[in-house]
Amino acid sequence: MRQTKYFLKTSTTLASDESIVSARLLKQAGCVAESAAGRYYFLPLGHRVHQRIAQIIREEMNAAGAQEMTAPVLHPLELWQETNRTKSTGFELMRVKDRRGSEFALGGTAEEMFVDLVRKYTVSYRELPFHLYQFSSKFRDELRARGGLLRVREFMMKDGYSFHADEEDFRKTYEAMKKVYSRIFERVGLSTQIVESDNGYIGGEYCHEFITDSPAGESRYFVSADGQYAAHEDVAKFERYAESEPEEMRPREDVEGVGIIGVEELAKFLKIPVEKTTKTILFQTEKGEVIAAAVNGIYDINETKLRRAVGCYDLTLASEETVKRVTGAEIGYAGILDLPKEVRVVMDVSLRHRTNFECGANKTNYHSININFGRDLTAPEKFYDIALAEPGFTAPDGHGTLSERRGIEVGNIFQLGCHYSKLMAGATFTARDGEKRPYYMGCYGIGLGRTMAAVVEAHHDERGITWPESVAPFAAHLIALQGADGEAVYQKLCAAGAETLYDDRDESPGVKFTDADLIGIPWRLVKSAKTGDKVEVKRRNEKDVRLLPLDEAIRVIANGSTEIRW
Amino acid sequence: MRQTKYFLKTSTTLASDESIVSARLLKQAGCVAESAAGRYYFLPLGHRVHQRIAQIIREEMNAAGAQEMTAPVLHPLELWQETNRTKSTGFELMRVKDRRGSEFALGGTAEEMFVDLVRKYTVSYRELPFHLYQFSSKFRDELRARGGLLRVREFMMKDGYSFHADEEDFRKTYEAMKKVYSRIFERVGLSTQIVESDNGYIGGEYCHEFITDSPAGESRYFVSADGQYAAHEDVAKFERYAESEPEEMRPREDVEGVGIIGVEELAKFLKIPVEKTTKTILFQTEKGEVIAAAVNGIYDINETKLRRAVGCYDLTLASEETVKRVTGAEIGYAGILDLPKEVRVVMDVSLRHRTNFECGANKTNYHSININFGRDLTAPEKFYDIALAEPGFTAPDGHGTLSERRGIEVGNIFQLGCHYSKLMAGATFTARDGEKRPYYMGCYGIGLGRTMAAVVEAHHDERGITWPESVAPFAAHLIALQGADGEAVYQKLCAAGAETLYDDRDESPGVKFTDADLIGIPWRLVKSAKTGDKVEVKRRNEKDVRLLPLDEAIRVIANGSTEIRW
Repeated sequence: MRQTKYFLKTSTTLASDESIVSARLLKQAGCVAESAAGRYYFLPLGHRVHQRIAQIIREEMNAAGAQEMTAPVLHPLELWQETNRTKSTGFELMRVKDRRGSEFALGGTAEEMFVDLVRKYTVSYRELPFHLYQFSSKFRDELRARGGLLRVREFMMKDGYSFHADEEDFRKTYEAMKKVYSRIFERVGLSTQIVESDNGYIGGEYCHEFITDSPAGESRYFVSADGQYAAHEDVAKFERYAESEPEEMRPREDVEGVGIIGVEELAKFLKIPVEKTTKTILFQTEKGEVIAAAVNGIYDINETKLRRAVGCYDLTLASEETVKRVTGAEIGYAGILDLPKEVRVVMDVSLRHRTNFECGANKTNYHSININFGRDLTAPEKFYDIALAEPGFTAPDGHGTLSERRGIEVGNIFQLGCHYSKLMAGATFTARDGEKRPYYMGCYGIGLGRTMAAVVEAHHDERGITWPESVAPFAAHLIALQGADGEAVYQKLCAAGAETLYDDRDESPGVKFTDADLIGIPWRLVKSAKTGDKVEVKRRNEKDVRLLPLDEAIRVIANGSTEIRW
Repeated sequence: MRQTKYFLKTSTTLASDESIVSARLLKQAGCVAESAAGRYYFLPLGHRVHQRIAQIIREEMNAAGAQEMTAPVLHPLELWQETNRTKSTGFELMRVKDRRGSEFALGGTAEEMFVDLVRKYTVSYRELPFHLYQFSSKFRDELRARGGLLRVREFMMKDGYSFHADEEDFRKTYEAMKKVYSRIFERVGLSTQIVESDNGYIGGEYCHEFITDSPAGESRYFVSADGQYAAHEDVAKFERYAESEPEEMRPREDVEGVGIIGVEELAKFLKIPVEKTTKTILFQTEKGEVIAAAVNGIYDINETKLRRAVGCYDLTLASEETVKRVTGAEIGYAGILDLPKEVRVVMDVSLRHRTNFECGANKTNYHSININFGRDLTAPEKFYDIALAEPGFTAPDGHGTLSERRGIEVGNIFQLGCHYSKLMAGATFTARDGEKRPYYMGCYGIGLGRTMAAVVEAHHDERGITWPESVAPFAAHLIALQGADGEAVYQKLCAAGAETLYDDRDESPGVKFTDADLIGIPWRLVKSAKTGDKVEVKRRNEKDVRLLPLDEAIRVIANGSTEIRW
């Protein structure tokens, strides 16, 4: 491609104040341009990268036996109503009505669409499993778009849905997809960690994210010292502090303590260890239910964990009015004792096996101490995991200490189980015994634009992008300097099958080299008055410049960098 | 691909009442499934065809120097307001609002998006021309979806937009695209006619459709006897009847004639030739303007032509009340004489050069005869082409008689001129003289699904589809009959690079052969107890069956059918 004919507009100033490197570089290198906030054009150069990422995904998915197809972008809203997702999605669903009055959702994910398709047909157990996937535009009505391609409102996603007779069969695909996804990311130049994560709005019981470490990422997760356990902060388990041994029950007391702020101060005032204190926080769900969430005072509450424990999709701190009504006290004195029936108490596992502990007295200025299950309150049927993980906590199952990481979630895989097939009428297959059973399902997603941004986060230097060859828009960037004619070299590169961008512009060497470094094509070739019959060859991510005969240069480039060292 | 693992659901009964062959066959062959009306899934088999069509388009567009990219599907509504298209589109625009209140159009075509992109950058005349294109989901809020993929509400479209310094440069691309499009359609197996057509809602002055003849099509067009002139009925020009020589003016008379229906009866009653009569019909535009459209009584009015002449986007027959108000008469007596100023009279060129003609008297039961321009009414500054073409009419410029054809519009190309660049602020380039000038533009579209349906309309028989090899989902369909093991043959075909669908199902030969014919893969191979070391080979669209050694069969298939005859 001759650069004089190519719609490629570079800039070193465009978005130079952008704090996210990939957002800045992708704009400056002429790969993307923003339309409305969070909605991007992929310009010819960026589109080539986007397509190469898609092709790598396609190859790996097909090799794993998945089958590509497409579903409409507009989903009949009735389908989302069937699964109660019109209200429960984490992303805000965009809706549109046609002129006959039919309502549609702009696809955010497509579970309902794929189930609705498959249930149109009779399916026998002999035909299971199968795995269908598509590349299609997805829409998320995010309140804030940020970080260039990292969090957008419209993007191309590969989403796949697998159908199985039972969990055992599903497990095989799920484990296989872990490998497939890891290989996809490796091929595009990303090293990823498979991290347990929150299933969120998708439904189902367990899921994993593929996270590539980056300070630009929004995903905070924890990894155990032995690397065996990795989990997103919203699901990260950890061993709770446990009393060395239970104490004799002491008499309950309500101690007056005015205006004490924080558990440390409270413990000091009450002359008890901080581990004996309890944090109780009141929330309200989207339905107005009041929740009292309690953790050992040394921990904090993770609201995502709490939401999952409660089974709601939205939680807000209870209003002052509500707190007063249900506790009968000012804010700051809530506890888990004697709450009215309308309040649902959710206790963290860190409350279990404690004796003589403290909690708010539900009485202004008072704190109850020496509280004991059995005597002062009934132990709940179930203790939940609602506490926030922190670095240094102990990973479950003896995997050592947790450390914190931050990264970009580039893919995720979900166990859906029978969540959708049970909610959607007729979503069944004929089992071996002749019975109709709901399909057991999984789903698998990769955001292409975010993956592209993550590649840039991982592959750049102070001068620009350094594309891995697997996803580079071109293999070679040929630069003809003033006076020299690169046409013959260009023709020869094309004939050899090396996809080449040919800088045939009437620009200074400085402009051309700066642009070449910004754009980041793996091999740079220079033809100038000085190079004679030869050509100057340099890899974008190395310093060495070599003068090589053209045929030798082509051989080097055509063989691919991974095998070549000089 | 092993059929037992493939999501391929054929049926001989599904949609068997569908009157459009391609709609029925694509559903029965498991290529597509309908979601909501006019919104389709492309199932794995159909998706392969869809992708092959896309790839052929991509290859030809790239070879012509066009550059692929993508624009967001949601278009900021402000852009459509800038060009006044929120109201003027022929398709009803779908709109959606996000939760921050921003409004978007669901892309129907993307002129505004591409202009908005390009105007973000400074463009010099040296960089022109360039041609950007994309494949993306398009939305049309059609009142009626019909004919399977022929008229849908959501579809994948290749839309391209070219930018030029002037019309001369644009013309080169426009003529080149005629060839590129013809070649694309030829490669997918369609012979197309390039037909002048109505520019409709897109703006600009001239455009052409690529029509492949088919009784399933909705496009009616006319071709001259010498084949040099082809035009859609909405723009087809033809020579009007002309008086052999002008007559002496006779005195105007208003003749009473009650309840006469039609021009033939009227001419007989008035004892004048039908050519002397005039049809005057009253319309109202979307703005309420009243239009009196008049043609020589031997013709009818084409409303699209009239709309274009008037410069409005919607026309309806005037209400009885309006007719009475402006003519002062009952319906049936409207003429072009003495109409009030609020009525705009639009006369067809067939009214020119007439003497002593008839028209409605604008008086109940009366007809005026011996009307003459200059004496009885003033000749208009301009006569328009608003008459409906009919077979047998004379083509313009001596190309002979027009004959009528019907077909499917699979592509179209538009001259946009400076329509968009003038309406959108800052859509300029720096000309050679340093002045800023609006870009001169063209646009070019192909609907992929409709092309796929047109291929099926052109390539099928009573047993199913007969895909051309260029777009066939697989090259070969291997059938193992009960008892025989096709695995080795399948492996060998795959190793030879022949994309093969392997029917390894436990089904009867009848079921397998019926499915194979329905699906329509170009080459059928049968391995059975009878075939021994060999394999039975048959082309889908031929009757001959040959028993060939496998290597020979592979050679035949791998070489492609176009070169092979036996």
